Amino acid sequence: MEGRLALEGCLLILFGATGDLAFRKLLPALYQLEKNKQLGSDFAVIAVSRKNYSTEEYLNRSREAVKRHIEREFDTALWEQLKKRIHYQQLDFTKERDYDALNKTLKDLDEVIKADGNRLFYLATSPKYFEVITGYIKSKDLYNENRGWKRLMVEKPFGRDLSSARELNQALTRVFNEEEIFRVDHYLMKEMVQNLIMIRAGNQIFEPTWNREHIDHVQIISMESEGVGARGEYYDQSGALRDMVQNHMLQMLALTAVELPGNLTADNLREEKIKILESLIPLKKDSIREQMVLGQYAGYREENGVQQDSSAETFAAIRVFLNHPRWIGVPFYLKTGKGLTEKAARIVIQYRLPIGSCCVGEMKAIEYPNRLTINIQPREGVVLSFNTKEPGTLNTLVPVNMDFCQNCLIGMNTPEAYEKLLSDAINGDQTSFTHWKEVEASWKWSDILTDWTDKNPDTVRTYSKGSGGPQEAEDLIEREPGRKWI
Amino acid sequence: MEGRLALEGCLLILFGATGDLAFRKLLPALYQLEKNKQLGSDFAVIAVSRKNYSTEEYLNRSREAVKRHIEREFDTALWEQLKKRIHYQQLDFTKERDYDALNKTLKDLDEVIKADGNRLFYLATSPKYFEVITGYIKSKDLYNENRGWKRLMVEKPFGRDLSSARELNQALTRVFNEEEIFRVDHYLMKEMVQNLIMIRAGNQIFEPTWNREHIDHVQIISMESEGVGARGEYYDQSGALRDMVQNHMLQMLALTAVELPGNLTADNLREEKIKILESLIPLKKDSIREQMVLGQYAGYREENGVQQDSSAETFAAIRVFLNHPRWIGVPFYLKTGKGLTEKAARIVIQYRLPIGSCCVGEMKAIEYPNRLTINIQPREGVVLSFNTKEPGTLNTLVPVNMDFCQNCLIGMNTPEAYEKLLSDAINGDQTSFTHWKEVEASWKWSDILTDWTDKNPDTVRTYSKGSGGPQEAEDLIEREPGRKWI
Repeated sequence: MEGRLALEGCLLILFGATGDLAFRKLLPALYQLEKNKQLGSDFAVIAVSRKNYSTEEYLNRSREAVKRHIEREFDTALWEQLKKRIHYQQLDFTKERDYDALNKTLKDLDEVIKADGNRLFYLATSPKYFEVITGYIKSKDLYNENRGWKRLMVEKPFGRDLSSARELNQALTRVFNEEEIFRVDHYLMKEMVQNLIMIRAGNQIFEPTWNREHIDHVQIISMESEGVGARGEYYDQSGALRDMVQNHMLQMLALTAVELPGNLTADNLREEKIKILESLIPLKKDSIREQMVLGQYAGYREENGVQQDSSAETFAAIRVFLNHPRWIGVPFYLKTGKGLTEKAARIVIQYRLPIGSCCVGEMKAIEYPNRLTINIQPREGVVLSFNTKEPGTLNTLVPVNMDFCQNCLIGMNTPEAYEKLLSDAINGDQTSFTHWKEVEASWKWSDILTDWTDKNPDTVRTYSKGSGGPQEAEDLIEREPGRKWI
Repeated sequence: MEGRLALEGCLLILFGATGDLAFRKLLPALYQLEKNKQLGSDFAVIAVSRKNYSTEEYLNRSREAVKRHIEREFDTALWEQLKKRIHYQQLDFTKERDYDALNKTLKDLDEVIKADGNRLFYLATSPKYFEVITGYIKSKDLYNENRGWKRLMVEKPFGRDLSSARELNQALTRVFNEEEIFRVDHYLMKEMVQNLIMIRAGNQIFEPTWNREHIDHVQIISMESEGVGARGEYYDQSGALRDMVQNHMLQMLALTAVELPGNLTADNLREEKIKILESLIPLKKDSIREQMVLGQYAGYREENGVQQDSSAETFAAIRVFLNHPRWIGVPFYLKTGKGLTEKAARIVIQYRLPIGSCCVGEMKAIEYPNRLTINIQPREGVVLSFNTKEPGTLNTLVPVNMDFCQNCLIGMNTPEAYEKLLSDAINGDQTSFTHWKEVEASWKWSDILTDWTDKNPDTVRTYSKGSGGPQEAEDLIEREPGRKWI
């Protein structure tokens, strides 16, 4: 398929290979890469975990997992091809001598497949092991004396506030350079999130009006209809601010607001995103109640793993401004939560009402602003709401939609996030991974919110499951005329 | 229906009441106005023609015509209501005493229905009678000593060059003021042509980029698949330049290019349209061959009423520029013709390619410009072609369409042109009628083309019926990279 590049040869060392992420996402993604013929003979996977499996056992489990998680028919011949690349290695993350064994495996394998010493370490483990694993990667020279490249992929969450994130980052940067670290934000892998920049850069009709002069406000929305499900224990420690706002929501905001660099390289783009995140105006403690609404769905405290007196927020709506020439005075409204009416993520650009030309004969004032909606999931596409004359009338405007539904089109097959994530990392494309400075700026801004929330648990409002969240969230946006959640 | 206004009381005096236009368009339009309940008890029609009919006979013929030409089911009760308003009056356009009789009829009728002396004279006759009819209107005081208002509606063609148009206009203006003259260009009544201004004025997303900085070129296209049909004799005297370009095509150009006045009244808008038409840069005789392509479909000379050696053009494609700050350097390509592949009229705004942001990784240069297409007929609506990332690729852009099809929507019922035309004139709305200065500027520019064409009949190229016109018309637009007829 055009644009799907063959991947560079390398060893992918997958720590946490028997975990949920590996079985649900990474192995199915590898299967898909195999199917796309993106994997060469110089590519192999070393699956690493504490569990006492043989490679055969591991492969059997993997096979079942892939079968279960790919949405298409399972192709046995394809699997047979893929499984030759996968080698299981038992390892206790904290045992020095286990790393010696791993080192030998890597060296031997590299000899055979000629991966040129390229090594991609994927830490699909709890963050508490990041430091020890990266420590041994260095001390045991698992990256092979820098022959070829070394890269590190880590999963979110990256810390739980600025200070813990900094500590974590210091541990990683003792071993890997910033440009070798690939921090996964799987939201950035969603087709329409990636498309956002392309839509802006590729269309003369959108970018010239993409600014405070023409845009009234922006909405960034990510809603779930489900509750916390099996993630109660983790979620109760985290809450919506840490789980969604600090990372995914701010990343979407950054991509929406970013200045497009003249040359759209990954580095240039990330540099501009950093500027946006650093321009987030911190909420002031004495007015935070007017800028942020938190909620918890009724019944949350009865979920598995959740404290009976938990005040964790499962909903957050926030109004934020940027100290940035393009966006001064333009509010960005963020809304995210669980247990809401629908599962949907979208970005809405609401334009100002046209000024000046208001009246032909009895034409009413224009009521409906233009809106460009980028639908991220489950529907993927773009909708433009604009005004047209109601046929048969002189001057009555009616709002209508132009709709481009990407995932309604045959042949517009959206690949899975992790498939792109692995191939981008293997090809060294940092575009969709977050730079440390982005993480840092995001935490810096979010710390104020999480601190305040910890100290003011009474402000978390209960809302019924399946509703649109607390009424106060509607009030937050409707305070200004012509604005409401889309 | 909201926005459909009840009409002012008046007498509609319809000269040429037994002609094609009256039976095919005007009577069905009156039927529709009756159906919309837009006609009050103070509205009546005096149908005037040379034919020796009784009102009864005339009504029978009218009834058949309406039945045949409305697209919906014929409502007998509705017709019974309408027919009470219609009175037939035999009149020879050149006989003085016939006007005395007409005068009496008008006076009597006004007494009965209380139309306040308001009179709308509709000249659905050959232009050669305009002078004599308007002369008698004045000398016989058919407009009732200016009690109430008097208005005049005239059909195109308005002259066959600047000088004949001037003569005609002088005759009319001896009797009616400019603001009392309603020059019909039925193209201006098409829903999407009227919508053009509303779309520009009502949407913050379009107007700010509606200029030379963002637009590469504009196409104005009106194609017929049929040949001249029964209009051979008229058409052979006229040709595409006089029949389409000088009026409809230039009017569409004017609406596309016009500066939107702060207050969008009919007068303000027409004033701005005049400026556009006066800014048309005249083609130079020595380069006219590179700016205009003419054609005649094979078989045209065998059509009824057509001269055997006719060199009348049934096709014209022209490139024109405006001497106007908003549009300097932006070509407007006009294309019109008969016997072409399809029947379709549309306006295409092709944007420039975005500059600057060209390359993410291996992103190719952007190939597809944005295009906003206003479909006028037979499909009515708006299509925006824009670029989106091809799913599964890193940086490959593919062009896709967002489509708003107005006449595909239920409830978006497009009224007939003549229905609106009559109601606008009765309500005194000049927006969609052409000002004399528009006609004047249009002929001024067109005279150069028609003169040159008369002197260079050899440049009219033969094209096969059902084709896209002469190949040279493709060359005309494709001379510049990235441009072709849509």
